Amino acid sequence: MSYVSGIHAVEALLRDAPERVRVVLLQRNRRDERLATLRTLAAERNVRYEFTDKSRLERIGGTAHQGAVASCLALSLSSEQAFEDRFDTWPTPKFFLVIDSVQDPRNLGACLRTAAAAGVQAVLLPKRRSAPLNAAALKAASGAAERLILVEVGNLVRRLEWLKRLGVWIVGAQAGQTRQWNDADLTRNVAIVVGNEGDGLRRLTRQTCDELVSIPMAGEVDSLNVSVATGVLLFETVRQRHRRES
Amino acid sequence: MSYVSGIHAVEALLRDAPERVRVVLLQRNRRDERLATLRTLAAERNVRYEFTDKSRLERIGGTAHQGAVASCLALSLSSEQAFEDRFDTWPTPKFFLVIDSVQDPRNLGACLRTAAAAGVQAVLLPKRRSAPLNAAALKAASGAAERLILVEVGNLVRRLEWLKRLGVWIVGAQAGQTRQWNDADLTRNVAIVVGNEGDGLRRLTRQTCDELVSIPMAGEVDSLNVSVATGVLLFETVRQRHRRES
Repeated sequence: MSYVSGIHAVEALLRDAPERVRVVLLQRNRRDERLATLRTLAAERNVRYEFTDKSRLERIGGTAHQGAVASCLALSLSSEQAFEDRFDTWPTPKFFLVIDSVQDPRNLGACLRTAAAAGVQAVLLPKRRSAPLNAAALKAASGAAERLILVEVGNLVRRLEWLKRLGVWIVGAQAGQTRQWNDADLTRNVAIVVGNEGDGLRRLTRQTCDELVSIPMAGEVDSLNVSVATGVLLFETVRQRHRRES
Repeated sequence: MSYVSGIHAVEALLRDAPERVRVVLLQRNRRDERLATLRTLAAERNVRYEFTDKSRLERIGGTAHQGAVASCLALSLSSEQAFEDRFDTWPTPKFFLVIDSVQDPRNLGACLRTAAAAGVQAVLLPKRRSAPLNAAALKAASGAAERLILVEVGNLVRRLEWLKRLGVWIVGAQAGQTRQWNDADLTRNVAIVVGNEGDGLRRLTRQTCDELVSIPMAGEVDSLNVSVATGVLLFETVRQRHRRES
């Protein structure tokens, strides 16, 4: 069982994947019209809801529940086999995000929200060394985790090699490169690889990339938040592809 | 007094503004080489440090302190007068960020970190309706809040009108516009205005902008996290200006 917490995230889940929701828990006596909206939405989708007290919501959904927590079936992660089977069905230029060992669940969730907004076709996550897709991650994803195709990858380097053989260009984000993020040609099939908040990509991941790019930092700032860096890279991809079409 | 929490944020503060730090509190018996590095850094900068227990660190720095909290002088916010006095000294094209009523301190902090990384010259914040620059905000800013020129603004619309008279183009981020973020000419003097996580810009702020732009969302995603949207807009500015120079 997993829990999705926060008004926006619960609403997105009720709209997109009501079949995954077991019950919506709403805070008793909380004045917020948006909770009434959630109740109506749950009723329309034939999803059970109940009222409960604040302390229970905090216990299961953390402090930022805003009066609403959905208890739902765990996320369905795609297998690598399912990813391979589906690969040819995605239109080109293909567009993947690879999240290499991001540690903070909120950052992971924000990366997923950004990926969904930019229209990536699938997100690849290593089985180990990734933040858990817990309540904090799902809340930060704001409903996006339920909409995306998330693929759990056993051996990331091997999977990247597989993508390369199928004509996907692997672009890694790594501080300190001469090439800037917008120097890469992102109009072809690409997988964008982002890494850990502190250290960037792991060494083997880095060596497997076709191209490494940096987002230059002004002043004395070391790095961007990983979800912000992901946004800059993914929307540069959107920009380049949009330009080409127009 | 304010508190800066987390290894990275404390390190940045010790490097850039040691004169603002009263004392660095380090967690006793925590095994982490980075804490030893902080201790060395504090000693080098003649900043007092002491060891304390975890519960005290959590009380003053929140749960994500990572064993290190700095107690320091409050941020120095610039007055509007100081901003006016300084205005002509910044090189053109000028580059400002205006954060209109962002509610979540972590989002506010992430916006500041992004602004510093993109090289904005000053960040304008409304005195009212802005998240507090508390420990959570400063941690998310990861040292950037201490480096930026932050201007507290009494009447945001009047300040935007003032900027317009001085030749600054005001670009607001607002969902649902036909114009895309990269349609705007960001090579001139600009102030980028970003708004509240849920509702976007306030009505009067919106009406005062010279131009409104959207970042298009794929699928059924409503919006980006405000710090991610800020990153996309600020680095599009960096990209356009870099291209012009080369």
